Amino acid sequence: MVLSRAITLVESTLPSDQTLAEEVMGEVLPFSGKSIRIGVTGVPGVGKSTFIESFGKMLVDQGHKLAVLAIDPSSQKSRGSILGDKTRMDSLAADKRAYIRPSPAGSKLGGVSARTREAMLLCEAAGHDVILIETVGVGQSEIAVKGMVDFFLLLMLSGAGDELQGIKKGIIEMCDALVINKADGGNLEAAKRAKRDYANALHLFAVQENGWSPKVEICSGLSGQGLDAIWEMVQAYREKMQSNGYFEFNRSNQRINWMHEHIMYLIENKLYSNQHIQLLLGNILEKVKTGEVSPIAKAKELVDLFLEKKSS
Amino acid sequence: MVLSRAITLVESTLPSDQTLAEEVMGEVLPFSGKSIRIGVTGVPGVGKSTFIESFGKMLVDQGHKLAVLAIDPSSQKSRGSILGDKTRMDSLAADKRAYIRPSPAGSKLGGVSARTREAMLLCEAAGHDVILIETVGVGQSEIAVKGMVDFFLLLMLSGAGDELQGIKKGIIEMCDALVINKADGGNLEAAKRAKRDYANALHLFAVQENGWSPKVEICSGLSGQGLDAIWEMVQAYREKMQSNGYFEFNRSNQRINWMHEHIMYLIENKLYSNQHIQLLLGNILEKVKTGEVSPIAKAKELVDLFLEKKSS
Repeated sequence: MVLSRAITLVESTLPSDQTLAEEVMGEVLPFSGKSIRIGVTGVPGVGKSTFIESFGKMLVDQGHKLAVLAIDPSSQKSRGSILGDKTRMDSLAADKRAYIRPSPAGSKLGGVSARTREAMLLCEAAGHDVILIETVGVGQSEIAVKGMVDFFLLLMLSGAGDELQGIKKGIIEMCDALVINKADGGNLEAAKRAKRDYANALHLFAVQENGWSPKVEICSGLSGQGLDAIWEMVQAYREKMQSNGYFEFNRSNQRINWMHEHIMYLIENKLYSNQHIQLLLGNILEKVKTGEVSPIAKAKELVDLFLEKKSS
Repeated sequence: MVLSRAITLVESTLPSDQTLAEEVMGEVLPFSGKSIRIGVTGVPGVGKSTFIESFGKMLVDQGHKLAVLAIDPSSQKSRGSILGDKTRMDSLAADKRAYIRPSPAGSKLGGVSARTREAMLLCEAAGHDVILIETVGVGQSEIAVKGMVDFFLLLMLSGAGDELQGIKKGIIEMCDALVINKADGGNLEAAKRAKRDYANALHLFAVQENGWSPKVEICSGLSGQGLDAIWEMVQAYREKMQSNGYFEFNRSNQRINWMHEHIMYLIENKLYSNQHIQLLLGNILEKVKTGEVSPIAKAKELVDLFLEKKSS
């Protein structure tokens, strides 16, 4: 499959592949962008895979071409990622109208993000008009996903009011929608109550510059109940943001930020992998930690050293 | 006054001053750190100056030596800052037991933060045992202040439930306490109601790794009512964090982060002020914005160019 091979190419770290990858990216760029990009997050156990499988199935049945990508900086190349085990999304993985790609490997979020962004553009150029980017509810990776999607959705469970224990601070306030999953069977009433509670709390806290008030919905990834309402909400969001200009404004900003972030990512990598820096860093960190030496003075020393001996 | 002159020295951009400043910082470092560092934020109009004046007066009357610093990256050298107009803190500014320093000038938050951190260490070395760092409720500067204090306090007003409109997302969730100011006269009942609402909402949302549940208090900066309870809360926090080890753990992390941040700040400055980069950047940004060129490819080009021509 051409798409897979192209994505493998941009993920490659071989210099020869990288040159080709840059050419490919330059070629596909004009054909990218014509999609809605949706971020999906939630703690393990919230039912993300089941939700994405059902939601994705509904979308492809409606005629959409779907791509499911993932960002999980903790995943290892050999072990796959949260999506690596495709058996968790059996029917969607077997569906030709959907393309599922696990998280690229890498311990640095900057690199994982860069590769996922490029994979997203490749999927768009290949005609996928709905992109789902899955991530885990643990902090930095959400910020990265927020920076590359149009709409950000947080999956939650109903419970005793303390169901947010596992969610890192700040994530709720980045969301355009909070969806209470597993609202089925004996859970339905609790989910409805939780919806009311969260709607009240969101009303108190969340303000968005684009005029959107984050919504709370309930659904069941298992039965499919409520998934159509979520898709309608996403479409209403897109329509509103396209007409008030925020949609393109946000994407332009994302592209600019993406470049600045990537500049800083590249230079940070070069600095910390510089052998002169590495020789000194461990000792300096120990002393900074205890407060023995000034972090400011040591930062200046290290930067001066790096720029003097950048070639090493 | 020696303290003022030392701070002026570390804020200086003259190379000869910088060398001396580094020496001074090296000398004072062992004497710094013996304080409680409290961040105070809130939107304009919330009564920050009155709160700090009353709270500070209470502390110095109890025998503390107080320093009030500020972070406001938007302030200009000539215009002073939110604290530049010392007439807003008349009696505290005239009090020898308190030291008030406006925000250092600068448009880059990284530079402003670095200078405020150094001023903080100088104040501590001079014997100040309570440091208040004031900032405005608008986003990035809160994150900077959070990274240099032990306790973070958000001032708010009671109102119709939408009083958070002016507060940027994420700030509430960084706070150790939410204090409803101007709880006096006809406002008292509304403040009590707001306290209940926020306490409920915080209960739903906030979780801290250090085992602290953010508290909601009410006070009046004008009458002084409730300020003693706030100070007690801060002391209870310090005691708890010192006994569970989080206090020193947090400060060690802050020092390490401070060095990494300063490294990135310095190198970012050098890159974007490089004349070869500046020549190209405007044109590249335009093309990245519209999606014409790849942000990733351009980032790589710019970094390669910078490291090749770093001396310019």
